Amino acid sequence: MADAVRQMDIRPGMSVEALVEEMRGCGFGARRLAQAVDIYEEMLSDGYTKFLTLSGALVPAGMREIVSELIRREHVDVLVTTGANLVHDIIETVGPHLLGSPEAEDGCLREEGLSRIYDVYISDDQFINFEEIMQTILPDREEPISGPDLLRCLGSTIDDKRSILRSSYDMGVPIFCPALADSMIGLQAWLHRQTKKLRLDPLAELNELIDICYESERSGIMILGGGVPKNFCLQAMLVTPRSYELAIQLTTDHPEAGGLSGATLSEAVSWGKIAPSARFVTVYGDATINLPLLVSATLSRLANSNHGGGPANNCGEAVR
Amino acid sequence: MADAVRQMDIRPGMSVEALVEEMRGCGFGARRLAQAVDIYEEMLSDGYTKFLTLSGALVPAGMREIVSELIRREHVDVLVTTGANLVHDIIETVGPHLLGSPEAEDGCLREEGLSRIYDVYISDDQFINFEEIMQTILPDREEPISGPDLLRCLGSTIDDKRSILRSSYDMGVPIFCPALADSMIGLQAWLHRQTKKLRLDPLAELNELIDICYESERSGIMILGGGVPKNFCLQAMLVTPRSYELAIQLTTDHPEAGGLSGATLSEAVSWGKIAPSARFVTVYGDATINLPLLVSATLSRLANSNHGGGPANNCGEAVR
Amino acid sequence: MADAVRQMDIRPGMSVEALVEEMRGCGFGARRLAQAVDIYEEMLSDGYTKFLTLSGALVPAGMREIVSELIRREHVDVLVTTGANLVHDIIETVGPHLLGSPEAEDGCLREEGLSRIYDVYISDDQFINFEEIMQTILPDREEPISGPDLLRCLGSTIDDKRSILRSSYDMGVPIFCPALADSMIGLQAWLHRQTKKLRLDPLAELNELIDICYESERSGIMILGGGVPKNFCLQAMLVTPRSYELAIQLTTDHPEAGGLSGATLSEAVSWGKIAPSARFVTVYGDATINLPLLVSATLSRLANSNHGGGPANNCGEAVR
Amino acid sequence: MADAVRQMDIRPGMSVEALVEEMRGCGFGARRLAQAVDIYEEMLSDGYTKFLTLSGALVPAGMREIVSELIRREHVDVLVTTGANLVHDIIETVGPHLLGSPEAEDGCLREEGLSRIYDVYISDDQFINFEEIMQTILPDREEPISGPDLLRCLGSTIDDKRSILRSSYDMGVPIFCPALADSMIGLQAWLHRQTKKLRLDPLAELNELIDICYESERSGIMILGGGVPKNFCLQAMLVTPRSYELAIQLTTDHPEAGGLSGATLSEAVSWGKIAPSARFVTVYGDATINLPLLVSATLSRLANSNHGGGPANNCGEAVR
Repeated sequence: MADAVRQMDIRPGMSVEALVEEMRGCGFGARRLAQAVDIYEEMLSDGYTKFLTLSGALVPAGMREIVSELIRREHVDVLVTTGANLVHDIIETVGPHLLGSPEAEDGCLREEGLSRIYDVYISDDQFINFEEIMQTILPDREEPISGPDLLRCLGSTIDDKRSILRSSYDMGVPIFCPALADSMIGLQAWLHRQTKKLRLDPLAELNELIDICYESERSGIMILGGGVPKNFCLQAMLVTPRSYELAIQLTTDHPEAGGLSGATLSEAVSWGKIAPSARFVTVYGDATINLPLLVSATLSRLANSNHGGGPANNCGEAVR
Repeated sequence: MADAVRQMDIRPGMSVEALVEEMRGCGFGARRLAQAVDIYEEMLSDGYTKFLTLSGALVPAGMREIVSELIRREHVDVLVTTGANLVHDIIETVGPHLLGSPEAEDGCLREEGLSRIYDVYISDDQFINFEEIMQTILPDREEPISGPDLLRCLGSTIDDKRSILRSSYDMGVPIFCPALADSMIGLQAWLHRQTKKLRLDPLAELNELIDICYESERSGIMILGGGVPKNFCLQAMLVTPRSYELAIQLTTDHPEAGGLSGATLSEAVSWGKIAPSARFVTVYGDATINLPLLVSATLSRLANSNHGGGPANNCGEAVR
Repeated sequence: MADAVRQMDIRPGMSVEALVEEMRGCGFGARRLAQAVDIYEEMLSDGYTKFLTLSGALVPAGMREIVSELIRREHVDVLVTTGANLVHDIIETVGPHLLGSPEAEDGCLREEGLSRIYDVYISDDQFINFEEIMQTILPDREEPISGPDLLRCLGSTIDDKRSILRSSYDMGVPIFCPALADSMIGLQAWLHRQTKKLRLDPLAELNELIDICYESERSGIMILGGGVPKNFCLQAMLVTPRSYELAIQLTTDHPEAGGLSGATLSEAVSWGKIAPSARFVTVYGDATINLPLLVSATLSRLANSNHGGGPANNCGEAVR
Repeated sequence: MADAVRQMDIRPGMSVEALVEEMRGCGFGARRLAQAVDIYEEMLSDGYTKFLTLSGALVPAGMREIVSELIRREHVDVLVTTGANLVHDIIETVGPHLLGSPEAEDGCLREEGLSRIYDVYISDDQFINFEEIMQTILPDREEPISGPDLLRCLGSTIDDKRSILRSSYDMGVPIFCPALADSMIGLQAWLHRQTKKLRLDPLAELNELIDICYESERSGIMILGGGVPKNFCLQAMLVTPRSYELAIQLTTDHPEAGGLSGATLSEAVSWGKIAPSARFVTVYGDATINLPLLVSATLSRLANSNHGGGPANNCGEAVR
């Protein structure tokens, strides 16, 4: 017999964990979010290799420290990202992005030297700073270098504990960026190579990821936003005897359009990327809302279970 | 000078209010949600007539008690809804909806006597119960009756404090349902009229709403999901000298399609429905996630400010 | 064995019919559109009662004459619509809507007396004309009147062959508008009633629709845009022993949000509104593109098959 | 004074060109599509370097020959694509994709050896064929090779005039694939490298694209589906003194989510990627519908204007 819908009970002063707990008995997106928390809690418990993919302008939108916090808490074993998120991670080390308006007149913004990402701006000055940093820290070397190695090299030079690059470097988390040339890091590398030596080796990057997939007895993946990071991380399983056993996807795309970013996780089962027995869920919507909810609720649950379980501890001191 | 993006800081044990506070410095949907909380807090403070419109299957999805709680807390002065949400409100008085699967085979569900709303089911038995209730409580009268009057009449007979209909009746909140015939209440009224007398008067309903708009010095509106309730509530201002001064919209639709449900609130300014000086924001996404977040954070803030302010009280006992 | 994907072959000078024929062997939306044409061709052939529902601002966007043409060609037996589409149908009789910009400053538009629907404007003058027409043609009568009767009355006074109201009147097609009060026709009726007599009877409207459903041996439905018209037309089958056997839906909404407008047609099978054996398809996307494609291709096919079939006649003279 | 909306006039036997012409006077998506045809017609006329970006599963969905036809007609100077579209281009040379169901049980599909892309299947046999081809045609060489060079090498070995790779090779159109490792070509290259020599040079790829951008006096871009190809092609302009002067985007994403794929083209103006004086338009919706419409209408117009203009020639013989 099917379970009953349980009408949500909302009160002042609720914790995020309690809010998500209320969502468990609901339909639609609320239910999927509660399921995502269940799956994420299992993924962050012992025994899973944890893959995280980033796509979309998450760092400019304010999600940078959620990612670096997850890394520092040992909740990420492999990070796969667009180049842009790393560019903006470096930019944040010298100054914050700016809050703007999605209705701004873009020709005027150009004259003022502001580049727009929906309602976030970056000034030309910030890009100049970025360029100076990059021209200083990009290596000059004869031997080809893989993406993860180059990003370790960059991460080691960044003096900012909230940086994704630095946190990954500190924690030994490899960063894969299969389209690194498709970013301002790529443009800076191209500029750098006008006078210095630098050569990327994308197949070595693939090699490193496949090795991790081979060696991971049980794997779980959280996919933020689709795109190349999603596909790169899923396809690496294809040449191994394994599949992901846990999977979460936060996306604004829809299956009906047929594109990869909106494809259901079930579709990945037909490819053998995700196990038929896997637990997985897609939460449709804006990741700047759903990611903080998901992470906050999951960390709360983990903190509670570490403390010996019992009822949710809403007053729990921040762990970090 | 533009404000800086503030990267979110997520911790275990956070309150919903603290989470939304972290969203304030972000871009994209997170920022809009934080703005919605600001606007809703102002709307729920003294001096505004508070309009709430419901569209989409909010009650089957578990949002029923959020609505009735808002009503009982005197945070709703006018409710405008689809008939379906009232049908499901009545159904909940005799038993809960069921959790199902969006991938179920619908022909099989029909054979099992289950009707599906995405991942929620209702059994034929529940509809039979509903029919019995309706045939008992629908009035037999010569005089035409307005929608709000009929719904007051229904609400008075429902013995369930968590019911939207009952809560509205108890609190003197009128319910407008401009397409009442487009619902199972409508079908039951049609059936009832085969043997009894019942006549609806939709223009009287319009009259009652316009009168409230006329008399409201300052008005704020929260729109959940677009549709007829959105338009009905907005258009009533057109024949008054006033406009809404605060407006929030939670929707999954987008402006580019040109339909009313996804239309920006700014568009309503061109019509004179919303004041040019109004504060308004649209949060795109699933209302079953965004509504609980919005309401929980706003109630927390109100509770804190009533208690003399100070830092958010995460351990705050439930107020109700 | 599954059929093969057939790669589209696009040439200059193609007919719409040939284009859609090429879509038949494709995936995603193209395939759904070709299926919709197949289903619509069957629906417009003998033996089906043809229901058409309109939602969204189709008339302001330029779809008015597609609808009236379908009516005049006897391809519509029942029309269910939002009030807004009828309001704009009447406005078009005295002058066209205006092409505007979705980025216009809405406060300025208000000062200029322009109301915006995405990228279409209506001037205050047009609304004044509309008001004059309405105050002239609205009846003054003691007896309650059903929506279809009132709309027949309005249609009979409109001297414009391209009007939806007039075409429906001429062809004897009833127009159902279950939320008529939720439109400027409703506001004008309310105004009219300040000094004259006018009373709507929504349950009589339901009665008329249910009678048609009862008497229709085989029924097909085309749903443009969801909303109240979709639900009203589908639910009327619930109190009959019948179901729709053909169904097409053009929508920009998605099932994942759980709302009715994006609900799959399969979901309606679980309710008994659509037959388990029915042929149905949803085409996701903008109806201002997909509707003309669908109608043009279907009319071409019907014209060809009436002429004895054979290869598509691209030079075919317009039939009307 | 604003132009008037012109209600569409749909007839049997219409040409695609005539249909789009009718859309010109409409609102919403129809209007955008007609604008896209205007812009594309200008782009395909003399004097523009024509960039085309492909993202999403366009080849599996049946769009392969539209792309190769555009290439063979000299309507593409630069192609930027995901690896997946090239993988499926190669697969099509040995046999077609299969039409499937989006509701298939994915675990069963895996057992049957079928991989699903929404409603399209590929069998394991096809992947085995693909693997054999790739292991035969991938080069064994010491020197690093750029993506475009590798793809020229692959294209030269493909004996299929409808192939995108072969058409590009024949016509001298470079193919950029900034995330080539993120595809089965990448996986095959990785496999190949276990025993042979092969090294990609992504920065050389960037170099080649930037050189083209530098040398293009006037540039136009058509973006299908966003993603890495969109960004890679737009960002290359950043290090030149130029910007795109014409731009078309077909996408299912929306600006409100903040991601690049749904970002407005106006946003690219703030970055200097698109000129403030540029003509550009985004058509929201399924590219498997909108691309054939756009290409068919534009080719028709070009054919007509080449033939001395005059009224649209609906019976025009296919040009190819």
